[in-house]
Amino acid sequence: MSVLVVGSMALDTVETPFKGVEEVLGGSASYFSLAASLFTDVKIVAVIGDDFPEKYVQLFKSRGIELNGVQSTRGKTFRWHGRYGYDLKDPETIATHLNVFENFDPVIPEDYREAEYVFLANINPELQMHVLKQVKKPKLVACDTMNYWIEKKPKELIEVLKHVNILMINDSEARELAQEPGIMKAARAILNMGPQILIVKRGEYGALMFSKEGIFWAPSYPLEDIVDPTGAGDTFAGGFMGYISSDDSSSSGFKRAVVYGSVVASFTVEDFSVNRLVNLRKEEIETRYSAFLKLSNLD
Amino acid sequence: MSVLVVGSMALDTVETPFKGVEEVLGGSASYFSLAASLFTDVKIVAVIGDDFPEKYVQLFKSRGIELNGVQSTRGKTFRWHGRYGYDLKDPETIATHLNVFENFDPVIPEDYREAEYVFLANINPELQMHVLKQVKKPKLVACDTMNYWIEKKPKELIEVLKHVNILMINDSEARELAQEPGIMKAARAILNMGPQILIVKRGEYGALMFSKEGIFWAPSYPLEDIVDPTGAGDTFAGGFMGYISSDDSSSSGFKRAVVYGSVVASFTVEDFSVNRLVNLRKEEIETRYSAFLKLSNLD
Repeated sequence: MSVLVVGSMALDTVETPFKGVEEVLGGSASYFSLAASLFTDVKIVAVIGDDFPEKYVQLFKSRGIELNGVQSTRGKTFRWHGRYGYDLKDPETIATHLNVFENFDPVIPEDYREAEYVFLANINPELQMHVLKQVKKPKLVACDTMNYWIEKKPKELIEVLKHVNILMINDSEARELAQEPGIMKAARAILNMGPQILIVKRGEYGALMFSKEGIFWAPSYPLEDIVDPTGAGDTFAGGFMGYISSDDSSSSGFKRAVVYGSVVASFTVEDFSVNRLVNLRKEEIETRYSAFLKLSNLD
Repeated sequence: MSVLVVGSMALDTVETPFKGVEEVLGGSASYFSLAASLFTDVKIVAVIGDDFPEKYVQLFKSRGIELNGVQSTRGKTFRWHGRYGYDLKDPETIATHLNVFENFDPVIPEDYREAEYVFLANINPELQMHVLKQVKKPKLVACDTMNYWIEKKPKELIEVLKHVNILMINDSEARELAQEPGIMKAARAILNMGPQILIVKRGEYGALMFSKEGIFWAPSYPLEDIVDPTGAGDTFAGGFMGYISSDDSSSSGFKRAVVYGSVVASFTVEDFSVNRLVNLRKEEIETRYSAFLKLSNLD
């Protein structure tokens, strides 16, 4: 089994009241693929500039992540600069330089088109649709989006939703997409738009999975220290898709995937960039997975 | 078994963007006692003015709630006027008229002093201490507080904490009390102040219980409609203390109590004032209790 991800690879500058980092590896496809690679093989489709550090290329390769779909283009890599306040939530964007990402035209290499598990990270819904047309018979497609696309490309987004199995967004995006303040009604409205599953990511409050089989609530382990929440959502998606590619035949498999997604995300935020993901051992994941389950266990 | 509560009885005026109510039954002791009375016998110590509507007195009596400790004083009953925004969180206080509550001197009637389960609602810590000196050998004392007392009466509050078993507060109060942004560290610091158990109430995100045995996370069922969140915290406490008075010999009893507290609170917010609590049937509680447990069940 392998998972295909289409998204961004970036160089991030992140400030928090406590510490900061400059021009470190970021981007949805980076976080996703490193998380998913803890569970399965991963292929990336993305674009980088000619200034993309070779050490990051080697990092992906060392994790067995396939980069044939990563276009290396003349110009600068996508850069994002964000600043977090004391609550370490909702960063202020200081600068976004799309650079080579501005004209990203995702081309799925021939040998990727049989991909069964596909994740469309948060990009223009027109590009998401363009990707979907290139993959042949995916078994499971998940996508992310954000308020910007809900507002700027609602029609195109609605079209994408007709073709995906799983939508992963946060509380306020779900409410905005459904134009409905109550999360239960919002979830029902979104499930009527196409996806069979809606996963609402709630950061330190866990995640909710809605489907016609009901609702599942995954807790989030209270962490000792949150260093940098950047990439938590994409890491969640990577852990989820990575796990589900080996266990998608029952609703408990999907529930376990939500917990694995939450577990991997809980590690990511313990350090800047992908630092914690890179050092993460399988045993640490299993230990925290058990701790997550114990957290809501009555016995 | 019975539970003693010391707190406020009030007439609330509540506005939401959707609807409002005027001069309806409110106050921590009212919500607490009506919730706890679903599980056990309850005795109230509070103060009301001579304008307190007889229909509310009859309501408490119809639920078997003992009012011998409720002082009826010349003057007006405590009034609170709050306004909620669209998110139905953190109300703006339009007016607080303490009235007879300003000189509240809680006197525990002789036949209440043997009380085994005691809840000190959110009042001046000096009064909480004054109450504790009057009860003889309580088995379990829980208390609530708020940012106002953390800031205005820190010494008095710290003294109270040395004498209570359980503190129930929200996230930001826990952080402020411990002067520590991370909730794990804050919890440890608070457990060092005296209580054996800290319950952090997180509204629609459930509740966390910290003790030396570990952490327990109770989910909160996503509701169809939240009408008025007023009283959710006191209802939680009422459900918790009501249940625990019959099942306090194991750590699973405490976990079940947290879930029952969350369940009863989830009903309270479905209507204004205590309306939903008053109509609540035991079967509805059990049905939602099962739904809560199912919510985080992997199978």
